[in-house]
Amino acid sequence: MLTLYHQPFSPACRFVRLAISEHNAESDLIVEPFWERRPEFLKLNPAGELPVLVENDGPPIVGARAIMEYLDETRGYMQESRRLMPDHPEKRAEMRRLVDWFLDKFDREVGGIFVHEKVFKQDMPQRCGGGAPDSAMLRAARANIRPHLRYIGYLASIRNWLAGDRFSYADLAAASGISCVDYLGEVPWEEDETAKTWYARVKSRPIFRPLLNEKVRGMPPSRTYADLDF
Amino acid sequence: MLTLYHQPFSPACRFVRLAISEHNAESDLIVEPFWERRPEFLKLNPAGELPVLVENDGPPIVGARAIMEYLDETRGYMQESRRLMPDHPEKRAEMRRLVDWFLDKFDREVGGIFVHEKVFKQDMPQRCGGGAPDSAMLRAARANIRPHLRYIGYLASIRNWLAGDRFSYADLAAASGISCVDYLGEVPWEEDETAKTWYARVKSRPIFRPLLNEKVRGMPPSRTYADLDF
Repeated sequence: MLTLYHQPFSPACRFVRLAISEHNAESDLIVEPFWERRPEFLKLNPAGELPVLVENDGPPIVGARAIMEYLDETRGYMQESRRLMPDHPEKRAEMRRLVDWFLDKFDREVGGIFVHEKVFKQDMPQRCGGGAPDSAMLRAARANIRPHLRYIGYLASIRNWLAGDRFSYADLAAASGISCVDYLGEVPWEEDETAKTWYARVKSRPIFRPLLNEKVRGMPPSRTYADLDF
Repeated sequence: MLTLYHQPFSPACRFVRLAISEHNAESDLIVEPFWERRPEFLKLNPAGELPVLVENDGPPIVGARAIMEYLDETRGYMQESRRLMPDHPEKRAEMRRLVDWFLDKFDREVGGIFVHEKVFKQDMPQRCGGGAPDSAMLRAARANIRPHLRYIGYLASIRNWLAGDRFSYADLAAASGISCVDYLGEVPWEEDETAKTWYARVKSRPIFRPLLNEKVRGMPPSRTYADLDF
């Protein structure tokens, strides 16, 4: 049995949820208000960050990348042609570069900003940094998303999926960040048709359905969010 | 033949250099002034970040973690009991958690600040952000290093090496960050005897020698830096 400590609108947590579903596994989901730094949660991860996965009574598997490698090591080999990890070390390196790109760079410049400003700050008490969104940060994220969308479009134009022939963790990392931003209506889809087509393909996979049904309290999803033909 | 694009005082690059040496491999080192965003370098890594490894005429292997996995996949299995990656998926997850801790969290809160403020800003032209160190940032890093040092001491007190019985990438990640900060004389060694003993053990490994001979232009190393009995 898998238990995942997560936040529904954390891109790194969505990445792990999608990866678990791709392995036909299920997990108990525990929403963790990480900003409260609960002592029980800090015992699982002293860094106080999400996601954290626990399998049965095993030790915590901490962080999106460690969880990705763990899922591949414990389940990936059974996936055959549906394995999310390419077969060759060089191809795996390219896939990991893109996972870093989306979980780190995209998150720092775009996804993490939107989610922190528009979603988490609404739930956080003021003493933990909650409050109104910072409009300068939102403006920066709105400018930053354009080159990222073009980069997705570029990759999707030279390859079948972002990291190569096969659907991989790179597609999950990009799609999990994009899905959070899309919920908030902040993806300028008209800017890149190829990126849009790539995302429509990812979004129509059955693993994506649960995410498309989620709602942020007091904030309806954008018109495009749950629409498969947006 | 391996070629590594690096900066001598980047913790992530030191991590990779140490890992290459542990595999008894050698690499051509190319110092890359990443802040100049040279078009040739951006072709290797569009994110413009270090480290980047190239093997023969192969594609670039980008980022410290992708390089770590690549080295293990292509060479680790020959290392037997000296393999830097633990054998069990759960143990590997713990090792990867600590690699993230030191390459991300420690770097963001301590190592990256000291290196950026005291080393890189000295080499960068003003248009790229060069100039005098920001004393508020240095003060923050000096406060932040204390809990990290205690955490290293704690791990070293309950385990043989930071991630378990065997010397691993986690030790390399921690030691590469610490070594940069130690060069600058900013490690309060008197605060944690166990952390100090752990670092003395890592530092006395032959792979560490080349790092201990390096100098920053116009800035001599601290008294403790190259001393094995500091």
